[in-house]
Amino acid sequence: MYAVSLRCVRCGFELPLEAFYRCPDCGGILDVKYDYGSIERDIDPDEFLSRGGGVWVYWELLPLADRSNIISLGEGGTPLQRSTRLSKRLGLRELYLKNETVNPSGSFKDRPMSVAISKALEFGFKRIILASSGNAAASASAYAAKAGLECVIYVPDGTPREKVLQAVIHGAEVKVVKGTYSEAFESALIDSERFGWFNVTSTYLNPYTLEGDKTIAYELYRDLGGRVPRWVIVPVGAGPLLAGVWKGFWELMSLGLVNEIPSMVGVQADGCSPIVRAFVEGRNEVEAWVNPKTIASAIADPLKGYTQDGTRTVNIIRESGGFAVSCSDNEIIDAVKALARYEGLFAEFSAAASIAALSKGLEEGLIERDDLTVCLITGHGLKTVEMAAELLKG
Amino acid sequence: MYAVSLRCVRCGFELPLEAFYRCPDCGGILDVKYDYGSIERDIDPDEFLSRGGGVWVYWELLPLADRSNIISLGEGGTPLQRSTRLSKRLGLRELYLKNETVNPSGSFKDRPMSVAISKALEFGFKRIILASSGNAAASASAYAAKAGLECVIYVPDGTPREKVLQAVIHGAEVKVVKGTYSEAFESALIDSERFGWFNVTSTYLNPYTLEGDKTIAYELYRDLGGRVPRWVIVPVGAGPLLAGVWKGFWELMSLGLVNEIPSMVGVQADGCSPIVRAFVEGRNEVEAWVNPKTIASAIADPLKGYTQDGTRTVNIIRESGGFAVSCSDNEIIDAVKALARYEGLFAEFSAAASIAALSKGLEEGLIERDDLTVCLITGHGLKTVEMAAELLKG
Repeated sequence: MYAVSLRCVRCGFELPLEAFYRCPDCGGILDVKYDYGSIERDIDPDEFLSRGGGVWVYWELLPLADRSNIISLGEGGTPLQRSTRLSKRLGLRELYLKNETVNPSGSFKDRPMSVAISKALEFGFKRIILASSGNAAASASAYAAKAGLECVIYVPDGTPREKVLQAVIHGAEVKVVKGTYSEAFESALIDSERFGWFNVTSTYLNPYTLEGDKTIAYELYRDLGGRVPRWVIVPVGAGPLLAGVWKGFWELMSLGLVNEIPSMVGVQADGCSPIVRAFVEGRNEVEAWVNPKTIASAIADPLKGYTQDGTRTVNIIRESGGFAVSCSDNEIIDAVKALARYEGLFAEFSAAASIAALSKGLEEGLIERDDLTVCLITGHGLKTVEMAAELLKG
Repeated sequence: MYAVSLRCVRCGFELPLEAFYRCPDCGGILDVKYDYGSIERDIDPDEFLSRGGGVWVYWELLPLADRSNIISLGEGGTPLQRSTRLSKRLGLRELYLKNETVNPSGSFKDRPMSVAISKALEFGFKRIILASSGNAAASASAYAAKAGLECVIYVPDGTPREKVLQAVIHGAEVKVVKGTYSEAFESALIDSERFGWFNVTSTYLNPYTLEGDKTIAYELYRDLGGRVPRWVIVPVGAGPLLAGVWKGFWELMSLGLVNEIPSMVGVQADGCSPIVRAFVEGRNEVEAWVNPKTIASAIADPLKGYTQDGTRTVNIIRESGGFAVSCSDNEIIDAVKALARYEGLFAEFSAAASIAALSKGLEEGLIERDDLTVCLITGHGLKTVEMAAELLKG
């Protein structure tokens, strides 16, 4: 294994690769650190980046000691779809849609969950626990089923019924919490500490999850023939997906494969946009959001009790030269329709937010028509099909 | 293009590669014929079968003249999942699940539809029409949207709401027909003839669709490292998917790559099993089914008016040394649960029928514990999530 430690992103404190969630010294976010020198020595970059397949083809850059612990459902290796009709309408020369909806449980969460559940097995846990707004629930429960692990999930009471049903059918124990994602987050944290279950909550809490997210960067690099996008647009709740993609490109740079990193764009819904608010107001520290209200439930994270997660995301967005933007529910609905009508992709509301953000970025002149742009389409429309049916009536 | 003609499977009459649906001489099913000699001369078999990616990497064996007409959403290239927990429970040494649920619109239909819509573009049609029990509707509408073609669909009135919604959101005109799939089939046929729209109905009617299905065989061969499964178990309505997989292996044999073809197993629901009935009764000719009734709506095809489609499927099953078997709705529900609980795969009812059939085949001693077996898991559970929620309550 080339992973060597967990390192606090705030104070630099280092820990062994065990079941830690926060820096014991300062409470900061933990990040998996690798011996990049050895990786650079041992891999042939061309070979590494020509590998087909999913998340685990990049095993050297994943934090698993023993590959026999891999629990895979064929996650990752998703299509990078060149936009034709939508890009023309938007007046953009080169737009690519990274279609994460075709992951086994229907969202990008299968990447972090494949890594986290494999680690659970490697650590010897029999039970995992997590908080989720729905997609992580559907995903974790599927991987736990494949691994033969028990799975307990806290979800907020507004979670789409389809996602809860996915978790239930995979045999998970789903507990519905009154409140927002943040209340679910707290409940999972308490149970995890009390009972010693592995907490795979895929904000920045479980440091192994982000390692799955980052494989998107390698695939983008490969499928764009070694070109680095000018912009990668990502729907964000707390933002580990955005941070993961950024880390993936940062690693490609560390390995001497690229000279630049894309500018990261974080998208939230107007009704819950703590990260965007901090960005727009020029603050580094994110504040919790009060009373979230949006149809984009998968990214409706008020960050109450873990605002440092949002702060981490804002800092990465700034460092990358990107921006954060929020969209109204109506703009998101229009984006769902546009993706379906012009690109043949059926996205859930949160997933289409990246397209709504792209429209705004173009209107405001932040993104220019010749900029190589990638939008992540994070989850399948079938995951919010009931609400889509409702809204289409109107 | 290596495809040379359309050939009647009954009388051998040959036609040019145009928009034909039936043999003008005897009314028989048309099949795309290739110049296998030239293919064998031009391709390197090892290279051909090591190609990663989806349906179109096998372009030499697909009937498109100009590759610029390809309409792709990244279909195919689906995971072949080695069963661990379920195979142990069933007492089977080597079981693989071909996970077609991760295709862009959530079912295997994206393979035939990618080919059919690309052909529509190549032929210059502006509008396509089809009959569907739901999955083909969701798929055709998505590809038509990507291609900028208009799409008209007839579905029977019991079609799952999720699938209808997929088609609607992709901009298709969906007409609900009172009755079964067969009534929808007839309506689409009439409109197609009356208005001259390209009929992409993916029974055996549109001969180009089956060419997409057959790519599953190439992927199985590749992902099994050149081994040929003893059994391939396929949920069947009319059966073009089963016939497609069979044809794919037959082509591998024609090209000198394999020496044998898997035995094909066709699965239907007790409540609509015209093909199984003919097989069990030892008849070659299939008769239409009266009053279909099953939760497995995607394979509930009574074949009224086109029984020759079922006859074609029965003949292929026999020729391959396979068998046909039907399962009760309860057995199918149990199979959905088993796939979800032990393999982390959430299948729609019809899709899990292959697992129900496998159980029966093992019980009856038709399939033995050392037989290399592949089950096709044809569509995602999110496509029938409402009914799943209903049935899980009970």
